[in-house]
Amino acid sequence: MKVIEGSITAPKGYKATGNHVGVKRKRRDLAIIYSEVPANAAAGFTTNVVKAAPLLWCEQIINNNLPVRAIVVNSGNANACTGELGIKHVEIMAETLANCLDTTKEEVLVSSTGVIGVNLPIEKILDGINNTYSTLDNTLQAANQSAQAIMTTDTFPKEIAVEILINNKIVKIGGIAKGSGMIHPNMATMLSFITTDINISSELLNKALKESIVDTYNMISVDRDTSTNDMVVLLANAQAENPKIECENKDYNIFKNALDYVNTYLAQQIVKDGEGVSKFLEIYIKGVSSKDKARKLARSVTTSNLVKTAFFGEDANWGRILAAMGYAGVEFNPQEVTMEFVNEAGSVTLMQNGMPVAFDEKKASEILKNKEIQILISLKEGTEEAKAWGCDLTYEYVRINGEYRT
Amino acid sequence: MKVIEGSITAPKGYKATGNHVGVKRKRRDLAIIYSEVPANAAAGFTTNVVKAAPLLWCEQIINNNLPVRAIVVNSGNANACTGELGIKHVEIMAETLANCLDTTKEEVLVSSTGVIGVNLPIEKILDGINNTYSTLDNTLQAANQSAQAIMTTDTFPKEIAVEILINNKIVKIGGIAKGSGMIHPNMATMLSFITTDINISSELLNKALKESIVDTYNMISVDRDTSTNDMVVLLANAQAENPKIECENKDYNIFKNALDYVNTYLAQQIVKDGEGVSKFLEIYIKGVSSKDKARKLARSVTTSNLVKTAFFGEDANWGRILAAMGYAGVEFNPQEVTMEFVNEAGSVTLMQNGMPVAFDEKKASEILKNKEIQILISLKEGTEEAKAWGCDLTYEYVRINGEYRT
Repeated sequence: MKVIEGSITAPKGYKATGNHVGVKRKRRDLAIIYSEVPANAAAGFTTNVVKAAPLLWCEQIINNNLPVRAIVVNSGNANACTGELGIKHVEIMAETLANCLDTTKEEVLVSSTGVIGVNLPIEKILDGINNTYSTLDNTLQAANQSAQAIMTTDTFPKEIAVEILINNKIVKIGGIAKGSGMIHPNMATMLSFITTDINISSELLNKALKESIVDTYNMISVDRDTSTNDMVVLLANAQAENPKIECENKDYNIFKNALDYVNTYLAQQIVKDGEGVSKFLEIYIKGVSSKDKARKLARSVTTSNLVKTAFFGEDANWGRILAAMGYAGVEFNPQEVTMEFVNEAGSVTLMQNGMPVAFDEKKASEILKNKEIQILISLKEGTEEAKAWGCDLTYEYVRINGEYRT
Repeated sequence: MKVIEGSITAPKGYKATGNHVGVKRKRRDLAIIYSEVPANAAAGFTTNVVKAAPLLWCEQIINNNLPVRAIVVNSGNANACTGELGIKHVEIMAETLANCLDTTKEEVLVSSTGVIGVNLPIEKILDGINNTYSTLDNTLQAANQSAQAIMTTDTFPKEIAVEILINNKIVKIGGIAKGSGMIHPNMATMLSFITTDINISSELLNKALKESIVDTYNMISVDRDTSTNDMVVLLANAQAENPKIECENKDYNIFKNALDYVNTYLAQQIVKDGEGVSKFLEIYIKGVSSKDKARKLARSVTTSNLVKTAFFGEDANWGRILAAMGYAGVEFNPQEVTMEFVNEAGSVTLMQNGMPVAFDEKKASEILKNKEIQILISLKEGTEEAKAWGCDLTYEYVRINGEYRT
């Protein structure tokens, strides 16, 4: 696998665009992603019981295993808690884009992010769709504009493309994402849209995405708040013309690894661009008896406010990390825990077999001054491992999310 | 029931004291609570897998249903992650106090709070016990000193006493507690010690405490971090001479209600004195199909960083509250949610049946300026309800917990 220059238009047969249509004051707020032929689609949606209208629409299409031609996304308004009217707005957005692209509304996914509890400015959006679709293009610039158009409080667009070889055919995967920052006055969302030209069965595409989400997007945390609009969509349009992947063979594994790479990259970018973030933390837990347990332990550390504030203060506070593992909801033997901090400045062991180690404070301080820190935790109960990614909790986070509405 | 002046020495047959013995630099750091006769004891301990040494000692005594004569508590050092040596230190603390009081070490509970991963300065503590026990007294001043001696980053001692009438006998309950603030450089703890002179079976004492904890201490959250040392202890020494309560009769209910009052008061005081807290939030959820579900929904709101920062910013951000309910891990119909903010400044309805309501921003602003705010949430699925108590997330919280270790 190699990383290539590009974005969601890198794979064959995809076009994209992003425009300003007036939901937001100035910045781009409408993105369209288009596959020239019907694509198999897989998706993951928020686990929040409160789901925004566009998710209800997309769930129907995905659950019925329908092919997808296009995705329309607006930022600036989440179309959440908007009742029946919100649901009608989604349908009319799909219909409008379908008319433009000479397809059916059931082949159009809809996604929104922004304030919740406010009705969409639907006229602006429909006019916007009509005025924007003709700019769909397969250039990097067009893809970049779509990545910009899905942003809310993100400070930079998140894009990637990779290339793999499947049976001597070049297969590409591209992706764009936006972060879990919070928009004024309400919550925003994690959105990720992945395109690929691989030829793969719908069943395996779903399996690959589902499994990939567990170890990528589900292992990041900025503030433990799950949005009403979170959505990951993966389209596969078969334009690479590789022999169709229909079982979990070597080709499937090559694809799955590349997909994991793309999702891991985008997930990490989301954390790095989290609101007010000054430190990027990787929790790497090894030697655990089960994968699920390893994930739970790693995630519990990333969601602890005490751990997060300690890293903001560049404090080698292993006690808070151990305590956060302790309330992860799984059993383990604290006497078997060894913990190190690792990064380019070096490494320092803070506890060994559950007991504090006299460590070099100066070394620890050098490591903690860096922007990226790996917390390496080893148990002795098995061979499973997991990684989770998180960030510190800063004054800036409180400022951004505590601002008065105006 | 009436609230009376007093503390843990209000019930008959109890003495207390608090002293400075040198674990902390200046402030009181050793408390002793003493019952003149063996008392039935009930207790609740942290659910954290990582448990400090004193908790292991106390669990043995409580699980074996042994009578208790005394509790010795030190602040400034949690005796957590201290291995075999920590366990030996607990035993010798119990033994030393037992010798002073002419009882056995198995009748002495031990509790610690403060930094973790550092061995106790055991000589100072043992000398302290020997020099302090003679100051045990039943005065309010002595009880107040014990309440001071268990404090870490608390800004005020937490004490209460109440009186009830059981079969024409005056029965009293007294309590002291310390908060879930975080101590530099590691975590501190919630501790609560309750005394009563009621005559009640050990079984019912346990039942009353266990049930009371669920709706009091377990419904508060400052930062969702569960300490290695959390402990609630309830002693009942029968000195009120009421006919022994041996079934869940009217007398039991009178006692249980008074115990709930004491625990609710102490739990709320802990939140109000939480680190950096500027707002005290009561989440009151009604109309839910089960009590457990109501508790989960209420707790989920109090633990959301987004909700907490919104209240810090005095922002009527009902969307974040609804979203926090949405990831509580229970099903409910968002279309049935009605939400109000209530306090002495008035009330304002923000959403009705899952839809935003156009509300008076000025009124909302007046309500949010107050220090105490009730968030009243109604569903339409049943008759159960729950209350949870939380606080805002402030710059000051980040400052306190992000400080460099020095």
